[in-house]
Amino acid sequence: MADFLTSQTEDFSRWYTEIVQKADLADYSPVRGCMVIKPYGYTLWERIRDELDQRFKETGHVNAYFPLFIPMSFLEKESDHIEGFSPELAVVTHGGGSELEEPLVVRPTSETIIGHMYAKWIQSYRDLPLLINQWANVVRWEMRTRLFLRTTEFLWQEGHTAHATKKEAEEETLRILDLYTDFAMNEAAIPVLAGRKSDSEKFAGAVDSYTIEAMMKDGRALQAGTSHFLGRNFAEAFDIQFLDENNARQYVWTTSWGISTRMVGAVVMTHGDDQGLVLPPRLAPIQVVIVPIWRKDEERSAVLEVAQQIQQRLNGLVRVELDSREEVSPGWKFNDWEMRGVPVRIEIGPRDIAKQNVMLARRDMPGREGKTLIPMAELETQIPTLLETVQAAIYKKALDFRDSHLQEVDTYAEFREALEIGFVRAWWAGSTEDEAAIKDETKATLRCIPVDQPGGTGTCVYTGKPATEMAIFGKAY
Amino acid sequence: MADFLTSQTEDFSRWYTEIVQKADLADYSPVRGCMVIKPYGYTLWERIRDELDQRFKETGHVNAYFPLFIPMSFLEKESDHIEGFSPELAVVTHGGGSELEEPLVVRPTSETIIGHMYAKWIQSYRDLPLLINQWANVVRWEMRTRLFLRTTEFLWQEGHTAHATKKEAEEETLRILDLYTDFAMNEAAIPVLAGRKSDSEKFAGAVDSYTIEAMMKDGRALQAGTSHFLGRNFAEAFDIQFLDENNARQYVWTTSWGISTRMVGAVVMTHGDDQGLVLPPRLAPIQVVIVPIWRKDEERSAVLEVAQQIQQRLNGLVRVELDSREEVSPGWKFNDWEMRGVPVRIEIGPRDIAKQNVMLARRDMPGREGKTLIPMAELETQIPTLLETVQAAIYKKALDFRDSHLQEVDTYAEFREALEIGFVRAWWAGSTEDEAAIKDETKATLRCIPVDQPGGTGTCVYTGKPATEMAIFGKAY
Repeated sequence: MADFLTSQTEDFSRWYTEIVQKADLADYSPVRGCMVIKPYGYTLWERIRDELDQRFKETGHVNAYFPLFIPMSFLEKESDHIEGFSPELAVVTHGGGSELEEPLVVRPTSETIIGHMYAKWIQSYRDLPLLINQWANVVRWEMRTRLFLRTTEFLWQEGHTAHATKKEAEEETLRILDLYTDFAMNEAAIPVLAGRKSDSEKFAGAVDSYTIEAMMKDGRALQAGTSHFLGRNFAEAFDIQFLDENNARQYVWTTSWGISTRMVGAVVMTHGDDQGLVLPPRLAPIQVVIVPIWRKDEERSAVLEVAQQIQQRLNGLVRVELDSREEVSPGWKFNDWEMRGVPVRIEIGPRDIAKQNVMLARRDMPGREGKTLIPMAELETQIPTLLETVQAAIYKKALDFRDSHLQEVDTYAEFREALEIGFVRAWWAGSTEDEAAIKDETKATLRCIPVDQPGGTGTCVYTGKPATEMAIFGKAY
Repeated sequence: MADFLTSQTEDFSRWYTEIVQKADLADYSPVRGCMVIKPYGYTLWERIRDELDQRFKETGHVNAYFPLFIPMSFLEKESDHIEGFSPELAVVTHGGGSELEEPLVVRPTSETIIGHMYAKWIQSYRDLPLLINQWANVVRWEMRTRLFLRTTEFLWQEGHTAHATKKEAEEETLRILDLYTDFAMNEAAIPVLAGRKSDSEKFAGAVDSYTIEAMMKDGRALQAGTSHFLGRNFAEAFDIQFLDENNARQYVWTTSWGISTRMVGAVVMTHGDDQGLVLPPRLAPIQVVIVPIWRKDEERSAVLEVAQQIQQRLNGLVRVELDSREEVSPGWKFNDWEMRGVPVRIEIGPRDIAKQNVMLARRDMPGREGKTLIPMAELETQIPTLLETVQAAIYKKALDFRDSHLQEVDTYAEFREALEIGFVRAWWAGSTEDEAAIKDETKATLRCIPVDQPGGTGTCVYTGKPATEMAIFGKAY
């Protein structure tokens, strides 16, 4: 166990806050609730952004940019929306030395300003569907903040689409849910449960909200992305109408969906261990680190030379870094790069060079079993394969953990007990009030009603009423 | 001449505002001075961003993200800085329903908040140089705004570096100036004059400001990027110190530098003509558009099939789009894509298919001379080469225009006359007051003292004093 880091079992929350700072992912800022994303953390976010962006573009979406400031009156046009967001707003009252006639809100989300523009841009069915995404910063005045998980300002993407029919908008909502699920599984190596939010947990202004829910290593749930079917709520509030093929005026149907820098926190809390971060190779800023080892000074230049050759051979093939620092020992470097979660380490010393071998060490498998000696000639073939192996292994590990901490229960007594371990799956036919009562009694919330249902019927775990759907409950971040 | 567009000679300013909107680069927003960057304009910005970002990373810089909000007291720590920016600030006074104890400024630039963090992060000479860049939105409360050129909110990158020695910081300032020059020439096809700003035009808080100055098609100057040597001004204001190799405490030397969405406006006004945009191939969102041509309905499917084959062959090689719309004619499409500045058009009709030819038409060379009939088999080789030819040609055109509108003068009478045409180069030994007088008399400002000087000495065009440097003057945006 690393002595510089609180262990996960001792205090998971403290472990998280410590590792985020020690691994140089983020730092506190002098501005209440706002964080600084440090270069290592930002590079991880860039990888997340690039992978999502590519998927958005492949599914026909384009990027645009809308103003940071929104007139207060815009937010008031959709009643649920303003009710949900009004406690969280940051308000600009002065500009250029004068008081503004109408206060401007710093966007907490952009449905309203984008709705206003869509009303101007959309005239005919030929303008639909309109599939736009925005990468932006947003501000929500949060009372209790945590690095990446809940900050006053955060970075995200927000997709906003408009469609001619309800069916198309619903399909888009679920297409994005699938896209998010695919991203979480295949890039972040995070197994997620995709499902519908209950009325009490849905987005302010949505008809239906969908979510991907991940389990952190302390058994708690993290909402990692959401996709909303907004019906005609914003179309009516902002008068977004089009002429259909029969020349009749109709309101459009809209969706919105987002993933934020919170995803960085999800990666940390899904895979990390007592030695620090464990990063999935596909998102890791550095995939392979080369640590040269020498005992005597006269060995140094020969070892460094080979290490540099290895770096050059791998450059472009994988994201590789050579740690040639002289002021710290190889052992110190091992710990340092383990703490930073680099998936694969290459060790190279005089004896390896003599035998034309290198030692590979896996971050996800500490100790001897994660080490392999390979011929230097096979670096270009073995390293990419090993990275894929690691990616699959950490996904499998996270999936096994999630599945062993998710219990299906029939009674409320079992329900309460299972919540101490992790997630609960149960038949559900309760109301918003029932959900509130459960939250009071257990601190757990309804995380989602999974898209994948077993079929059939059952008895609601809380009300005893007949139920047609199962729901997932958990204590959440 | 396009009848939907004001001609450049009639009213250049109106031409600009019209084409930016008609070509779907940007739109006005309901928020005073803020624009919406539409997908086509945003894709152009993404290309600019990616090209710059790659150059930053190749020169050892990393990206990070700092808070949008800055405590008002931070800006007041550097006296020139607050004096320069205070008339332009947007101020958040309320958050989460309460009035804030200290108002927060929406960042107009981030020297102060980054300076605060650097003081925390930098301890030893081993932490230097610190080379960080940020992609972000900033807000400056401008009185008169124009799409892309001057907006209340804009997107930009801001680099902030800290160094152990003055020499290193000065070298960084000029390295970035070179990088910007290289980007402007080779990607945006914009010839620029790189030089030092006079004291009256430099950045608020800088020791020296450097700029790249471009000439728009109306002969006016546009400052397209700036790089500042900040000396120890911010290091002293924020107490950024390090222990040097002799264990002595020293202040660091810092730089900052930025290019913004204004660059999109520079591209429009450097290359555009009366038919609309002319985009440099290296930045164009769409490099090649395929327009299928058929007269009779029975020709349609055969032509479309070949057009799709061509698209597939070029996909991945260049950014290509097939315009298969049926509700508009080929002639209408030609005008539409010319207006949007797509560098190369491929025309394909039944006769071309019969002969296995396609017609290529260059946007930068309207009419017959820009058209070439090539064998279909040569598409993959000819198209990339043609795009390079177009890139070089529009740079050459812009350079010839700039050079023919830049005159070297000896007397103030010549100086005033030459300003009616474009830029003026003259020996200069004037003061800040002399610059102000020239601005009153001619509306022109000192754009820069070029890095490349002829050497020798001369007589100042305004004061008659002996001068060792030549300066560039022009009327500016």
